[in-house]
Amino acid sequence: MVRFPFLPGGFSVLRTHKAGSLDASLIGQTVTLTGWVDRRRDHGGVAFIDLRDASGIAQVVIRDEEIAHPLRSEFVLKVTGEVSRRPEGNANPNLATGEIEIIASEVEVLNESAALPFQVSTALDGTETVGEDARFKYRYLDLRRPAPAAAIRLRSKASAAARRVLEEHDFVEVETPTLTRSTPEGARDFLVPARLSPGSWYALPQSPQLFKQLLQVGGIERYYQIARCYRDEDFRADRQPEFTQLDIEASFVDQEDVIALGEEIVQALWRLIDVEIPTPIERITFADAMRLYGSDKPDLRFGNAIVELADYFADTTFRVFQQEYVGSVVHPGGASLPRRQFDAWQDWAKSRGAKGLAYVTFGEDGTLGGPVAKNLSDAEREGLAAATGAQPGDAVFFAAGRTSEARALLGAARVEIAKRTGQIDESAWSFVWVVDAPLFKPTGEDDDVDLGHSAWTAVHHAFTSPKPEWIDRFEEAPGEALAYAYDIVCNGNEIGGGSIRIHRRDVQERVFDVMGIGPEEAQEKFGFLLDAFQFGAPPHGGIAFGWDRVVSLLAGAPSIREVIAFPKIGSGFDPLTAAPAPITPEQRAEAGVDYEPEEDDEA
Amino acid sequence: MVRFPFLPGGFSVLRTHKAGSLDASLIGQTVTLTGWVDRRRDHGGVAFIDLRDASGIAQVVIRDEEIAHPLRSEFVLKVTGEVSRRPEGNANPNLATGEIEIIASEVEVLNESAALPFQVSTALDGTETVGEDARFKYRYLDLRRPAPAAAIRLRSKASAAARRVLEEHDFVEVETPTLTRSTPEGARDFLVPARLSPGSWYALPQSPQLFKQLLQVGGIERYYQIARCYRDEDFRADRQPEFTQLDIEASFVDQEDVIALGEEIVQALWRLIDVEIPTPIERITFADAMRLYGSDKPDLRFGNAIVELADYFADTTFRVFQQEYVGSVVHPGGASLPRRQFDAWQDWAKSRGAKGLAYVTFGEDGTLGGPVAKNLSDAEREGLAAATGAQPGDAVFFAAGRTSEARALLGAARVEIAKRTGQIDESAWSFVWVVDAPLFKPTGEDDDVDLGHSAWTAVHHAFTSPKPEWIDRFEEAPGEALAYAYDIVCNGNEIGGGSIRIHRRDVQERVFDVMGIGPEEAQEKFGFLLDAFQFGAPPHGGIAFGWDRVVSLLAGAPSIREVIAFPKIGSGFDPLTAAPAPITPEQRAEAGVDYEPEEDDEA
Repeated sequence: MVRFPFLPGGFSVLRTHKAGSLDASLIGQTVTLTGWVDRRRDHGGVAFIDLRDASGIAQVVIRDEEIAHPLRSEFVLKVTGEVSRRPEGNANPNLATGEIEIIASEVEVLNESAALPFQVSTALDGTETVGEDARFKYRYLDLRRPAPAAAIRLRSKASAAARRVLEEHDFVEVETPTLTRSTPEGARDFLVPARLSPGSWYALPQSPQLFKQLLQVGGIERYYQIARCYRDEDFRADRQPEFTQLDIEASFVDQEDVIALGEEIVQALWRLIDVEIPTPIERITFADAMRLYGSDKPDLRFGNAIVELADYFADTTFRVFQQEYVGSVVHPGGASLPRRQFDAWQDWAKSRGAKGLAYVTFGEDGTLGGPVAKNLSDAEREGLAAATGAQPGDAVFFAAGRTSEARALLGAARVEIAKRTGQIDESAWSFVWVVDAPLFKPTGEDDDVDLGHSAWTAVHHAFTSPKPEWIDRFEEAPGEALAYAYDIVCNGNEIGGGSIRIHRRDVQERVFDVMGIGPEEAQEKFGFLLDAFQFGAPPHGGIAFGWDRVVSLLAGAPSIREVIAFPKIGSGFDPLTAAPAPITPEQRAEAGVDYEPEEDDEA
Repeated sequence: MVRFPFLPGGFSVLRTHKAGSLDASLIGQTVTLTGWVDRRRDHGGVAFIDLRDASGIAQVVIRDEEIAHPLRSEFVLKVTGEVSRRPEGNANPNLATGEIEIIASEVEVLNESAALPFQVSTALDGTETVGEDARFKYRYLDLRRPAPAAAIRLRSKASAAARRVLEEHDFVEVETPTLTRSTPEGARDFLVPARLSPGSWYALPQSPQLFKQLLQVGGIERYYQIARCYRDEDFRADRQPEFTQLDIEASFVDQEDVIALGEEIVQALWRLIDVEIPTPIERITFADAMRLYGSDKPDLRFGNAIVELADYFADTTFRVFQQEYVGSVVHPGGASLPRRQFDAWQDWAKSRGAKGLAYVTFGEDGTLGGPVAKNLSDAEREGLAAATGAQPGDAVFFAAGRTSEARALLGAARVEIAKRTGQIDESAWSFVWVVDAPLFKPTGEDDDVDLGHSAWTAVHHAFTSPKPEWIDRFEEAPGEALAYAYDIVCNGNEIGGGSIRIHRRDVQERVFDVMGIGPEEAQEKFGFLLDAFQFGAPPHGGIAFGWDRVVSLLAGAPSIREVIAFPKIGSGFDPLTAAPAPITPEQRAEAGVDYEPEEDDEA
């Protein structure tokens, strides 16, 4: 029995070396490479082929015109030849293998290639634009290009780095079911008909939330999983119907434990791109985040916080500012913007559902300009620069009205100003934990699915514990009670979030009660969790990182689609396989989709 | 900002030590533990509590009767106390912490527990039987028992061990889609209605086969994934509708590369249970496996191969043996079996669809017995012991008829005999690669879904390459052509299988043609793969391990259900969450299940 070793470093039966591994130390040796024709140049009857494999590029010299003749871009070759030093003056210092070339003695075409729909050569400078539709339809070609390939490889490294941290802390990887029951994240479920139980359907999980809690009841103590999750939501940019989260849960832990673990993971991840994240990572309360940045995911790469002016305008006669809330944000250098720019800001504000964006300009000489200024009293005008933090030459935008809406508008304006004025250091990494979020929020129109039937719905989810000081009295003021929850934000993106969970059945039932979920409905939907809480559930908590988002940040990718091997576009369409697709009437019948229970079955 | 470290080794805010980590070196120190009341004994007004956490057990001594009074099994406690040496004579050498005990100074009940549906204490000896329905309904209690917990933890270690091997060889972990298009494994798909494309459905993948091949076309070169797969098959014991495979694919490899890698993984896995698997692992051709063991997954922990007797009985006058095939297998010591045992063997054979199981006994004195013997000629009787390998005192079972059916019966009898006669060394590990399987088999009734429309269907799947010597002429003799495929078998269980794939569009189309899949249907179903093959697909191949089966073997578990955190039973029912479940008419309408295209849409 003849055997060949699958050697570390990339040898195999077909090749002796990886193309990118060759260097001057191998001069004089005969090697066999395999790979793709990345580029071909011809010079005086000699063909120079850049042969590309996953490791890099090596230059192959083919002197035999007949052999060289048919070889085109992306042909797959097996080349045997001697490693030689490139002639003087021909070395390429930009290439790891730039000192050498392979003088081909044997060339085998392993496969041919038709003309490509777009070019993939590494010799392209990356600025050429290929439409996203074409890229994802031919993703198998797109992945031959350096940046897309690097993003997918980085994802693998990120998963390995996170696992390493978790394994060091004795976390157990557990695979949880994906053909399961509706989970309580509040989005719409994807459903799967159960052929063997006609009329019944599985739901794909929106997260492993319930299972990871059950594993804690089961004494696993430390659980993790890089888990596929599913949410059937309406199309929004940069959403995928299936996505991945790094899902973590542990017993006998407190918020401090989970935050410390989360920071260790974030550090390990960012070290992959040679960035050292200082810890402890800053924390901000949810209330401060909303007050200062108008967002629960503030981008702290720049300052320019919102200023609250309700007190300042307490006695104003200007109707527009006679509101529950008045606040402002500075536009540095905004005084010199042309009028049409301010008009554009009005459109921007209207596109976000606001009436407009009041503003005042501060001339270099201190003169106030803009339509609002004339409505203000002398005293209000005089102190305005100091109150808003504006400098001569700045503009200030105002929002007034309901607190939450006005803050959201100012928060968005703050980010937009920073982008337009170059306040954002694109190389900076700013992390912050947002803590002390409210436990409940008023039930509103931004909930995809209304889980409960009351005025209150959970901000995180129904299994989040109130903070210890609220645990006995959250019903007294559901709008004020704080959750034992924490979100981690990176450069204005929420990359992870979690909470300490409820582990007592009585507390869980009281939370359901505030949400208008009665005992019967609770038992029907989550009875197995409530049952589990009766049998010695330990205190527990966890966190989940949005893995697609984390990796896209690490990769510097503009969209999570870049770090997903085969992403969907638009409303969940896969341009490569053309899924989803119609099914046959036979499939439909067989799956039991149209099963109608007999009258008798109801008895 | 006060911060607490999430220290390696299991510290946390709530506890200072893991229960199982305590030993005499800590005597005199005050520690805080958390965990469950595993067992409680009372002695002279003092309560002795075995406190259990994931690491083990420590004995807690509570002298205050009032504190001890309410504590029952599976209560969750936080205990602070001094580590002390147990009084002389009370040490427990069977327990890692058996030298010490904790004299409790503070006891906090973190949660109570109702009476359990079954006991979980580690003090039980493991022989108590709990029904599977109860165990899986209360899986969160079942997992507190030592054996189930160990199985789930071993699974995590197995995944880590395999990843370590693959990462050392530069394999890239890639997550492939699960909301996708029908894949070609030949079983029934689970379907998911696509709400945003009414009338269209996703399929859950039966394996990542097509995607892993596309990744090779994309130059990833080495891919792996611990992938969830879905097959909507009818209920059979030890099947799960969702299951996991360790999925591997690489470019520029040959069978030898994949086999060498597979052996490295198997070695790493079995080292987890302190077993060193010698390599190279033995190989057997598919033809020999069928001839000698009547199975494509022969159990080689014992010998007793099938003997072919068609030549021996070439001129027989015994009608039953005038068949295409006659073969036999020895039942050691079978001559002394009582008549009713042989009757039971007839029933056994009939339950497998055979007419019966002819047999001959060989008395200690060489006398032949049993109903067949009198039908044989003197010459046939005389040479029979030598021809079948029977010793005095043995019985021999015969099967005659169509080769494949008779071999299957003898193969099954061989295993059954081995079980009944104790021929199987339960501590042995016998691995074998089965190679050179046929490329095609006649289309038959055991195919869940008939992929093609001809007399031939693929044995592995439609993307398996013919062996090099068959690649240009497999159409000439589809039943004889060999596949470039390899299965790995452990103790009679197929634990993995793979193949070198077709990477040329012309070969792929010819294979489809033999299977009766015309160009149009091929393009409709797998067009994206055929398209990809046009653009420089490299030679590639891979393997997939049935992860549930692998881990169940490692764990010594009787069923894959034991190594799945939340398994389904029966026809896909989850006894814990009661999935699948009916959906509401609103869900049904919203999912677009009943979408009927307007007549106009067809235009």
